[in-house]
Amino acid sequence: MSVPSADVEAVARHIALEQSLEAPEDLVRTRGVEALVGRIEAIEPVAAAPPGAAAFVARISYPAELCSGQLPQLLNLVGGNISFHPRVRVADLELPPSVLARFPGPRHGISGLRHRLGVEGRPLLCTALKPRGVDSREIARMAGEFARGGGDIVKDDHNLVETSLDAFAERVRRCQDAVHEANAATGRAALYFPYMSWASEDLDRALELLACADVEGILIAPMLMGLDVTRRIGRETGLLLMSHPSFSGGCYVGETHGFDHGVYLGTIMRLVGVDASIFTNSGGRFRFPRETCIEISRRLRAPLGGLKPVFPVPAGGMTFENIAPMAGDFGTDTIMLIGGALLGHSDDLCRSTELCLRRIEEQFAAPR
Amino acid sequence: MSVPSADVEAVARHIALEQSLEAPEDLVRTRGVEALVGRIEAIEPVAAAPPGAAAFVARISYPAELCSGQLPQLLNLVGGNISFHPRVRVADLELPPSVLARFPGPRHGISGLRHRLGVEGRPLLCTALKPRGVDSREIARMAGEFARGGGDIVKDDHNLVETSLDAFAERVRRCQDAVHEANAATGRAALYFPYMSWASEDLDRALELLACADVEGILIAPMLMGLDVTRRIGRETGLLLMSHPSFSGGCYVGETHGFDHGVYLGTIMRLVGVDASIFTNSGGRFRFPRETCIEISRRLRAPLGGLKPVFPVPAGGMTFENIAPMAGDFGTDTIMLIGGALLGHSDDLCRSTELCLRRIEEQFAAPR
Repeated sequence: MSVPSADVEAVARHIALEQSLEAPEDLVRTRGVEALVGRIEAIEPVAAAPPGAAAFVARISYPAELCSGQLPQLLNLVGGNISFHPRVRVADLELPPSVLARFPGPRHGISGLRHRLGVEGRPLLCTALKPRGVDSREIARMAGEFARGGGDIVKDDHNLVETSLDAFAERVRRCQDAVHEANAATGRAALYFPYMSWASEDLDRALELLACADVEGILIAPMLMGLDVTRRIGRETGLLLMSHPSFSGGCYVGETHGFDHGVYLGTIMRLVGVDASIFTNSGGRFRFPRETCIEISRRLRAPLGGLKPVFPVPAGGMTFENIAPMAGDFGTDTIMLIGGALLGHSDDLCRSTELCLRRIEEQFAAPR
Repeated sequence: MSVPSADVEAVARHIALEQSLEAPEDLVRTRGVEALVGRIEAIEPVAAAPPGAAAFVARISYPAELCSGQLPQLLNLVGGNISFHPRVRVADLELPPSVLARFPGPRHGISGLRHRLGVEGRPLLCTALKPRGVDSREIARMAGEFARGGGDIVKDDHNLVETSLDAFAERVRRCQDAVHEANAATGRAALYFPYMSWASEDLDRALELLACADVEGILIAPMLMGLDVTRRIGRETGLLLMSHPSFSGGCYVGETHGFDHGVYLGTIMRLVGVDASIFTNSGGRFRFPRETCIEISRRLRAPLGGLKPVFPVPAGGMTFENIAPMAGDFGTDTIMLIGGALLGHSDDLCRSTELCLRRIEEQFAAPR
């Protein structure tokens, strides 16, 4: 939190009360429910605060029962009402075993996705099918060419959305068939992830259509479809999930409010249960600091109860030139998402994919 | 947007492309899909920008088909990837008739809720049942006392959540029965809105339990449960919906990014289809500027295609002393949410509610 020094304890008490019982202290006392109020464990000044601004870290603990074993209530507890405060930021989130036990997290994670692909020892290469407006046969052809060139995961762009389920089903089937055909030719097991964005009424039907087309994973934007809806889809369908951060930026881009980037795009995405979490990498069209991106990837793969580690997916304008820096920043267990730059690299997407993959492999070749 | 003057056109072009096709300009051209890219209609400097900072308003239009008639895609179109940009804010949102026709909005709105209550000519009085930890019999007694005192809507606090559906059903039934009994005694039609926060798997069952208990409306946090899930519940169940802003602050509290408060808490909540939208009012625990709150209420009630006007619900630490300023700022078609201050006002909640209601009525008494 960044507040005047004199106010820091009052603000910490406000947070602890607001996030737990949201009631005046008098009322809490007369009702005898003090045990449910958040507890201030420590308050420490931030040494590196910019001149003229005082910032503090307040460590506040809450009774685990307040999250009622439900993701919406856990999110409410850690970032609900306090999201209205422009000078309070959730800098870290530690969860006790009793809470983590209620959130099994990703069904597949890094190891499951690697096993499905049969790819070890290097980052995975992913691209995005775009732009919208192109005929579905051509989109499918692109998917097939990418798979034929050795790409690992081809996903829909998150703007590639139809108005009717029939049109969606047709395009998905074309794309999945193209990838299956490429796999038959290469002997590999490249995956196709359609983008799952439908009105809630149509969601179950859309998921059935995916099952009919033998689709094994999806791209989904949890903030648009619902964080808990995303979690449910992962648990119930067993689909591989790659999360898209669309509409979530407000949760972390303000430096003094919301969540630390890594808490939202890392820890919370693991609780949601995605197997791979996209974020906009430094060096691309958006300007997250490099350390921020490294911290996101750290949280996606660090020990967290029994939850499987998750692939970081640096993205947002990545080109062939970003491969070496991404290799250095994120290491082997990464999905490099190169969209427009790969599609536009040459007229031969299969060949461009081969080149791109070679660039990646070069970074991870065993030293002779 | 607040950017260096020289960059403003480039940033506007970036937004227009990012939000529509998210593809390099070359790729858009070679694929012949230029018609789907956002169009810059105007760029104007903001006269009132703070000294040293240049700010501009860029008016960008998009082909309506890009939202595919789906709320998630509409939100993606207006605030998806651009949410990662710390210096771009959605200051306004105008929707053409073809888009508005796909979003019928609130089923009840101000007129429907008033009709249900039989209350005209003054703001409605709402309170919140809290704190969590108090026995459900006592919570129900509070609900009954509030209704007996002439209160209009008693809602659960958004922290009042059970771990089991059985416990939820029991408390909801107690509260609803208490309000029904009070109504039988007063001849009025006070409403009880339980808080709907369950894991997605349990949502349908929880809604069935509400129907069994003759509940007519709910409190729901769209950002926690999913914006489109909230819309669906409103359309399918016909329940009255009051939205709680928990977890949504990141979307608007940063002055230079996200959405204008009124666009999110006003326009978007109408598209979601809630009948009443809670926001933290000036003069309470949080510090939204007064003009911001007035603008939210304006957007909730202004003409918007065929969508019904929605009740603004100023809240967040409102006391009896806030009644006069709220009356002046928001006028008749408002729900005044007074929670802790009403519950803690005296040992006699019925009597405190009567007093509170009288204060409201005094503000709206016809001049003699």
